[in-house]
Amino acid sequence: MKIDNINVSKYPGSTKKYVEGTLYPIRVAMREIHQHPTVTIEKGKRIECPNDPITVYDTSGPYTDPEIEININKGLPRFRENWVIERNDTIELEDITSEYGKARRDNKGLESIRFPILHKPRIAKEGKRITQLHYARKGVITPEMEYVAIRENLDNKERGIPTYITPEFVRDEIAAGRAIIAANINHPEAEPMIIGRAFAVKLNTNIGNSALSSGIEEEVAKAVWSCYWGGDTLMDLSTGDNIHETREWIIRNCPVPVGTVPIYQALEKVNGKVKDLTWEIYKDTLIEQCEQGVDYFTIHAGVLKEHAKLVQDRLTGCVSRGGSIMTQWCVEHDKESFLYEHFDEICEILNKYDVAVSLGDGMRPGSTFDANDKAQFLELEVLGKLTEKAWTHDVQVIIEGPGHIPMHKIKENIDKEIECCHGAPFYTLGPLTTDIAPGYDHITSAIGAAMISWYGTAMICYVTPKEHLSLPNLNDVRDGVIAYKVAAHAADLAKQLPGANIRDNALSKARYEFRWKDQFNLSLDPERAKQYYMESRREAPDADDRFCTMCGPNFCAMRISQNIAETCDK
Amino acid sequence: MKIDNINVSKYPGSTKKYVEGTLYPIRVAMREIHQHPTVTIEKGKRIECPNDPITVYDTSGPYTDPEIEININKGLPRFRENWVIERNDTIELEDITSEYGKARRDNKGLESIRFPILHKPRIAKEGKRITQLHYARKGVITPEMEYVAIRENLDNKERGIPTYITPEFVRDEIAAGRAIIAANINHPEAEPMIIGRAFAVKLNTNIGNSALSSGIEEEVAKAVWSCYWGGDTLMDLSTGDNIHETREWIIRNCPVPVGTVPIYQALEKVNGKVKDLTWEIYKDTLIEQCEQGVDYFTIHAGVLKEHAKLVQDRLTGCVSRGGSIMTQWCVEHDKESFLYEHFDEICEILNKYDVAVSLGDGMRPGSTFDANDKAQFLELEVLGKLTEKAWTHDVQVIIEGPGHIPMHKIKENIDKEIECCHGAPFYTLGPLTTDIAPGYDHITSAIGAAMISWYGTAMICYVTPKEHLSLPNLNDVRDGVIAYKVAAHAADLAKQLPGANIRDNALSKARYEFRWKDQFNLSLDPERAKQYYMESRREAPDADDRFCTMCGPNFCAMRISQNIAETCDK
Repeated sequence: MKIDNINVSKYPGSTKKYVEGTLYPIRVAMREIHQHPTVTIEKGKRIECPNDPITVYDTSGPYTDPEIEININKGLPRFRENWVIERNDTIELEDITSEYGKARRDNKGLESIRFPILHKPRIAKEGKRITQLHYARKGVITPEMEYVAIRENLDNKERGIPTYITPEFVRDEIAAGRAIIAANINHPEAEPMIIGRAFAVKLNTNIGNSALSSGIEEEVAKAVWSCYWGGDTLMDLSTGDNIHETREWIIRNCPVPVGTVPIYQALEKVNGKVKDLTWEIYKDTLIEQCEQGVDYFTIHAGVLKEHAKLVQDRLTGCVSRGGSIMTQWCVEHDKESFLYEHFDEICEILNKYDVAVSLGDGMRPGSTFDANDKAQFLELEVLGKLTEKAWTHDVQVIIEGPGHIPMHKIKENIDKEIECCHGAPFYTLGPLTTDIAPGYDHITSAIGAAMISWYGTAMICYVTPKEHLSLPNLNDVRDGVIAYKVAAHAADLAKQLPGANIRDNALSKARYEFRWKDQFNLSLDPERAKQYYMESRREAPDADDRFCTMCGPNFCAMRISQNIAETCDK
Repeated sequence: MKIDNINVSKYPGSTKKYVEGTLYPIRVAMREIHQHPTVTIEKGKRIECPNDPITVYDTSGPYTDPEIEININKGLPRFRENWVIERNDTIELEDITSEYGKARRDNKGLESIRFPILHKPRIAKEGKRITQLHYARKGVITPEMEYVAIRENLDNKERGIPTYITPEFVRDEIAAGRAIIAANINHPEAEPMIIGRAFAVKLNTNIGNSALSSGIEEEVAKAVWSCYWGGDTLMDLSTGDNIHETREWIIRNCPVPVGTVPIYQALEKVNGKVKDLTWEIYKDTLIEQCEQGVDYFTIHAGVLKEHAKLVQDRLTGCVSRGGSIMTQWCVEHDKESFLYEHFDEICEILNKYDVAVSLGDGMRPGSTFDANDKAQFLELEVLGKLTEKAWTHDVQVIIEGPGHIPMHKIKENIDKEIECCHGAPFYTLGPLTTDIAPGYDHITSAIGAAMISWYGTAMICYVTPKEHLSLPNLNDVRDGVIAYKVAAHAADLAKQLPGANIRDNALSKARYEFRWKDQFNLSLDPERAKQYYMESRREAPDADDRFCTMCGPNFCAMRISQNIAETCDK
C-alpha cells in the first residue's frame, strides 16, 4: 500500500517559526501570522504604520513547514528519539512483544495495507522508571518540559508580558499530578504538549473507522486535517477492520499525542463477543499499542459490577462504549471488572513506555436527565482511588468527564472532580447543555465545553455536527475542531491566561481598520472567513473595501466611527 | 407586484393544536409532535407501549396550519383586530399621518412593488392610554396576557406540572416593568408573546436588505423562514432601497412582533448624510412606522454628546450603527442628541399605538478588549433614566446589551442592567466570547448568549455565521436561529422553568429506544438530523436500525446497555 501525499495547505499569510530552548538544544515550533501596515492619510500624505506579526500556538507539525519534506509512507521525522535515548534509561527491543502484533506482522495477506517501515520499539530498562511524572518528582526538568513551557508562552517574553509558566513551573505541576505530558517513548514524531488547568485549554479530536465505513487513507487524512485545524491530541477510536494497521499509519504521521480505547480492539479480537473478553487478550492489546506508540489509553477501570444496577434507573442507561462493554462483561460473568482487578499490573505496563492513563467515565450521563446522578458520581470516587494508585506507579493520569449536563449542573462536575481526583486534569466530552439539537451538537456542547474549561477543565473532547447520527467526514471534523477551538479559546480569555487576548486584539484592530486579509489570516478558519466575505463581494465588485455587504457603506458603524475620530482630531 | 406563495413545509410528524382561553374566547396555537410507541418483545410477543405526544412552543403562525390558506399578497389573518376594537379606546384613522408615508403611497412609480392592500391605521383615542403596561398597572388582564400565559405553559397543566405562570402573574410582571408584550395595535396579524426574565428565553432574528443586496421577495421569505425555525421576534434592519414597502410586506405576513431601528430609514431619507438628520424627519418616520404596525423600536437615546470622546480610547470605537450615527450627529452639530432631548415626545407617540421601546446600546463593545468599559456602563446608566421616563408614559421598555464580552465579564452585564434599569428585560446581541472566529460567530456568541440568558437575559438577538462578513442568506438565517434556539433552550433548562425538560427527555428516550423518526421530529431541526443520518445509511443499506454508523452495531453503547437491562431482568 502506498498513500499519496496528503495535500495540506500552508496557513495563509503565515510562516513557521522556531524558538530555541535555553536548557536543551530544542526548537519549539510556532506559527507567525504576518500583518499589513495600518495606512492613514495625513495632510494628503499616505502614512504606513507597521503591525507586529502575531505568534500563535501551532498544532500542525511539519505539515506546514515548507523546509520539511512530507512522505506519508515514511512517516514524520522522529525528532524526539534522541531525547529519549540520551536519558539512557530505555533499551531498544529486538522484536515486538505482543503475540497479536507478531501475528499481524507475519500475515502476508496484510502486506498491502501495512505501513512500510517497522521501527523497533523501546522500553524502560529493567527496574527503571522513565515517565515524565517520575522525572518531575525527582526534580528533573526534561526537554519535554522545557518544550511545553516555551510553547505555552509563545512570544510573551518578547512582548514583555509577564508569565508564570517556566520549565520549573511545568515540572512542579506535573509532579503534583495537576498536569501531564503524554509522550510515549515510541511516538517520537509527536511534539510535546501539556494538559493541565494552569495552561491553555486543549482539545482532542476523535477519528477512526467503524465497521460500516472509512478506510486507512481516509483516517490518516482526517488525522492530518484535524491537526491542521487545531486539534491538540487525537484519539483513534477505530472499531472496524484492520485497527492495528490503521493505527500504525496514523501514529507514524501524527504530530500530536495519540490516544486509544484499547478495549475496542480487544473486543474486535474476540469478534465482538463481550463475554469472550479476557485479561490476557486485553493485556496483549495494551502492550501491542504501547509498542506502536500510543500516548494515552482510555481505560474504564472505574466501572464496577455494582454499577450495573444503578444504570437501570436511568433514562439513557450507559452511553459510554467502553463502560457498557465492561458492565456487560461484569454482568455476564458475575465478576468484578478485570480492568479494576488488574489495575496495578496495567500501570506497570504503561510506565515502561510512559503511556498516560485517561480514566474513562463509563457512567457518564447520556442525557441531561441523567446528569450528576449517583452512578456518575460513585464512579468518580472510584476514579479518585485509581488516580492515587496510578500515581504510586509514576503513571500520569487524566480523568474523563461528561457528557450531557445542563448549565446549572456543570460546575459541580469540575468541583467534585478536583476534590475526588486530587487535582488530576479533567478531560470532558462537551458537555452538551441540551439534548434536542442533533445535527448541531457541536454547538450544544461548545457551550458546555467553554464553561467547564473556564471552571478548570484542562482538555475538551470535540463533538462534531454528526454526533449521535453518523461517522463524521472531513468537513465535520473541521466544524467540530473549530467549534472547540472557539470554546477552548473563550476559556483561555476568561481564565485571563497571560497573552491570551493578543490574537483577539490584533484581529479586532484589523477589523476596525478594514485590513480584511489580516482579519482572515488571524481568524481560526481563514478560508471560511474569506469565502463568506468574497461570496457577497462578487455581487458588488465596484464597491470599495471599507465595509461589507452586511451593512453597506452608509451604515458601517466602524467606518462612521472612524470618520468621527477624524472629525474630533481636526 | 405579486409574490408567489412562499413554500413553507409543515413540521414533520406534527400537528397544529389550539388551546382555548378561559377568560377570553381566544385560541392559543401550539405544535404537537407525535411519537411512535415503544416496542418490546416479551416471551416472543410484540408489545407496544404508547408515547404521549409532546407539545412545543410554536412561532410559525398560520404557515404550518393546513386549515389556513396562505396568500402573501393578502397578508395573514388579522385575528387580534377585534381584541383591540373591543377595548373601545382606539379609533380608525381616515388617512395615514406620516408625510413621507403619504408621498410613498401617492407615488405611482411604486405601484409595482407596493403591498396590494392598504389597511387604515388605528390610534389611541384622545386622552386614552392603551398600552399593555397601562392595563397591567390598572389591574386589567388583557386577552394578550391570557394568551401568553397559556402559550408559556404549553400543556403543563395536562401533565400535572405545577407552574407559576398565570394570567395574573403575567399582568403583575408587566405592571412591574419586568416583562413586555410588544403588540402594536396596527399589527393584529402577530401572536402575542412575552419577553421577561420569568418566562422562556426568546430570540430575535435580524433580516433586511442593505444598499448592495437583496429584494423584497427575498426578505419576506427570510421573515417567514425565520419564524418557521423558531424566531420569536423579527427585526427588519433594511437600509437599502424601498424600506417602506419592504417593511409593509414583511409586517402583513409576519406572525411574530416586528422591530426596527427607525434612524436607519431616517438616514435613508437624507441620502445617508448624517448631518442632515433632524428631529422632524425622525418623528415622521416614527409615526410612519407606528401606523404600519412595527411592534418595537430600537432607539439609541442613551448615546450622548459627551460619549464621543470616551470612544476614542477604544480598540474598535463605536460598532453600533445607530450609536455611531447619533455620535456623529452630536459631534457635527456640537449639540445634544435629538433622541435624548425629545424622548418624552417620542414616548407620547409610541404609547398611542402601543409600540415598545428597545433602548439601544450605542456604546456596546465591538471587541472583547472594549468589554465593560466606561463608555458602555455610563450609557447603561442613561438607559436606566430613560426607562423611568418611558414608564411614566406607560411605554413598555426593553434594554439592549452587548456585544463582545469574554465569559468572566458576562455576569456583571446583567447584574448592572437589572440594577440600573430597575429590572426591565435585557435583550443582548450574543455576546460573542472571543473575537477570533469570523465565519463561526453564531458559535462564539451562542456560548455567551446561553450564559447571559441563564443569568437573566430575557431575549437574545441571533448572530449568523456571516456576522462581520456579509449579509446572511436563507441558510445562514437557519443556522443562526437554530444556534440561538440551542442557547435559549439551554438557558431554560438551567433556569429550571416548569416543563422545560419534557422535550429533552422525550428525545433522549426516543434515542435510547432507536425510534429514529421520533428523534428527528423532536429535534430543533428535523430535516438536518434526518439528512445526516440518512447520508451514512445509504452507504450501509442492509444494516438494521439499532445503531448508527458512528459506532457501528457492536459498539453501540445504547444497544449494549439495553442488552444488559434485558440480561438483568431475566
